[in-house]
Amino acid sequence: MIRAAALAFRERGYHNTSLDDIAAELGVTKPTLYYYVRSKQDLLFECFTAGLAGIFAALDEARLSAASGCERLRIVLRGYALAITSEFGWCMVRAEDQDLDAALGARIRARKAEIDQQIRALIREGIVDGSIRDCDAKLTAFAIAGALNWIAHWHRQAEELGPGEIADRFIGFFEEGLRPR
Amino acid sequence: MIRAAALAFRERGYHNTSLDDIAAELGVTKPTLYYYVRSKQDLLFECFTAGLAGIFAALDEARLSAASGCERLRIVLRGYALAITSEFGWCMVRAEDQDLDAALGARIRARKAEIDQQIRALIREGIVDGSIRDCDAKLTAFAIAGALNWIAHWHRQAEELGPGEIADRFIGFFEEGLRPR
Repeated sequence: MIRAAALAFRERGYHNTSLDDIAAELGVTKPTLYYYVRSKQDLLFECFTAGLAGIFAALDEARLSAASGCERLRIVLRGYALAITSEFGWCMVRAEDQDLDAALGARIRARKAEIDQQIRALIREGIVDGSIRDCDAKLTAFAIAGALNWIAHWHRQAEELGPGEIADRFIGFFEEGLRPR
Repeated sequence: MIRAAALAFRERGYHNTSLDDIAAELGVTKPTLYYYVRSKQDLLFECFTAGLAGIFAALDEARLSAASGCERLRIVLRGYALAITSEFGWCMVRAEDQDLDAALGARIRARKAEIDQQIRALIREGIVDGSIRDCDAKLTAFAIAGALNWIAHWHRQAEELGPGEIADRFIGFFEEGLRPR
């Protein structure tokens, strides 16, 4: 259900998709949908959360790793790039813009801020252990997140490059930028 | 008028801003606005175009320069970053998402595609003259544009770093990433 909603939101936009559309696509009744979610907003939030799961899994993996800051950052960037190229990428990047109620908007911003803070922390750790050159961790995290989030604007399923290859090329570009001099 | 509209759209969102609001802010009547623009859509397009002017000026400057591909790319990236940190940044990045009519949407996409193609061409020229390392020009242009466009999502006028400083730091990051090995 969450996957069907994510595809519909990406395809037609959030405001142009109704719960009726999603129910029809799944071949179920609207009351069946309401058994699982209270509203279209909730469904968007579930799509957002499903996409973020890959990023949080990568952050956990990085936290448990004993590798350098640069290598742990690579784990996270790979998880991030794969999440954005997934069917949930649109919802992850665009959910916040959809005129959600204040409480839901705040929850989305809080989860995004958490990811941002953890990426900044990894950059700072890499600077300390010498695997990342001295740089402004905040602006660098913004540059990286911007480049990755923007994938959701241009990436199409028909894209010739697979998600793994896009992830690798972006990571290669960032690592050149962050390599100690 | 265009500047007032750009500020209002960024502040309250395009759909939550009416021509009445903009007229009231300028202390003019709505018929006065209609003397200059036919619709709110037109006004958004004017804001978009005003923001892009800085990028096209930089592209012209780069075209007339005899410097290396890398140095000409720097001229364009600086113009791009300054445009995005201007009051028109929001309209430049977000105009396309505002359910415009098909013709206006197509014009916006065409101008964006033109900028994308010119940035790719500069990257390819830099690869040929040896000032930029061998890379996928299309993905690199997307990564750079993504990082720069994203500035419109996080940048606030109260930001401690000025537009010029943000531009310089982003350019420094990209140039490290593109430096020949």
